[in-house]
Amino acid sequence: MVKTTERRDRQREALVLAAEKAIAEKGLSGLKARDLAEAIGCSLGAIYNLVQDMDELVLRVGSRTLARLDAALAEATKGSASASSGDATDTLIAIAQTYCAFARENLQLWRTLFEHRMAEGSIVPEWAISEQMTMFRYILAPLRALQPRASEPELILLSRTLFSAVHGVVMLGLEEKLVAVPAAALDGQIEALVRVIGKGLTPGA
Amino acid sequence: MVKTTERRDRQREALVLAAEKAIAEKGLSGLKARDLAEAIGCSLGAIYNLVQDMDELVLRVGSRTLARLDAALAEATKGSASASSGDATDTLIAIAQTYCAFARENLQLWRTLFEHRMAEGSIVPEWAISEQMTMFRYILAPLRALQPRASEPELILLSRTLFSAVHGVVMLGLEEKLVAVPAAALDGQIEALVRVIGKGLTPGA
Repeated sequence: MVKTTERRDRQREALVLAAEKAIAEKGLSGLKARDLAEAIGCSLGAIYNLVQDMDELVLRVGSRTLARLDAALAEATKGSASASSGDATDTLIAIAQTYCAFARENLQLWRTLFEHRMAEGSIVPEWAISEQMTMFRYILAPLRALQPRASEPELILLSRTLFSAVHGVVMLGLEEKLVAVPAAALDGQIEALVRVIGKGLTPGA
Repeated sequence: MVKTTERRDRQREALVLAAEKAIAEKGLSGLKARDLAEAIGCSLGAIYNLVQDMDELVLRVGSRTLARLDAALAEATKGSASASSGDATDTLIAIAQTYCAFARENLQLWRTLFEHRMAEGSIVPEWAISEQMTMFRYILAPLRALQPRASEPELILLSRTLFSAVHGVVMLGLEEKLVAVPAAALDGQIEALVRVIGKGLTPGA
């Protein structure tokens, strides 16, 4: 019994890794259950003994992407002080630029985090929600330093707004849309934007 | 000869209107040449006497969407002064909120402006590029008032960055992503973001 569970866990891991490889190479639309079954050497039907459906599989790949993003953000903010508003702004700039670099280097896996929609009637499981939300702690710490009098709900809303703004610049820039910031100017403009926001958020500035 | 041209122009207009209706109802992925041929009463092949390909058709629909967005922005900025930095910030807020309202009310047509990619090897024609770029004039005027010492290339880059930031908040918000600003808070957060940026951009503030 134990042996069967272990074997299933190993097979599930192989399946998730195969799905990650497929998405990284061909994007979410290139993910085909048939190819995955072939890659890990099982029947098409056997896949659904390992994961409930393709949604769960894509969320498990997303979980790995988020864990790597989390590690990159932890590294970028390591030892960063938020003692002054200038320090806090520098931390926010480091976070935004790390996010941009991560998106650029993991383009298809990063896109999948936003492109994926659950099948009609399915809801995102609790563990996947909490993995996405925990990422905001990196932004919340410097925002708290910039706005010491803001309430926690206000800071949470502000962190979502700031994230969405930087995400917009990164997303249009990496898609190379006509109206986007040109790729060569992207890092500089992200720094400029977050610096302006940091200045605007500093009380009395 | 003249008569034939007139007839073709009328048929082309009917085709563009049918495509607009299809996209508004079902999104870009719901646009099928066969349905359009039926809607305007011509053969499938005859469509390609009216437009070169589906790309041109989608761009013509986009052209109509942009013209309506332009009219909304003209209305929102009518009589707006940029005499002080406060006025300029208010104008930027009005522009951002008008953009958000337009996106909400024209969700599928607005999404199509960003989702559409030209077929491999095709490039966006000059007229479509200039239609997209001309929209930036609304943002450039107040930015010039906020940053009187910035060069024109700097202002153009800044206008793209600011647009992308607001677009990110609107886009994630309207897609109702987990990490987005909740729909009910969207207008307020867009105002807050642009106000913070306006304050940050004001020299000496």
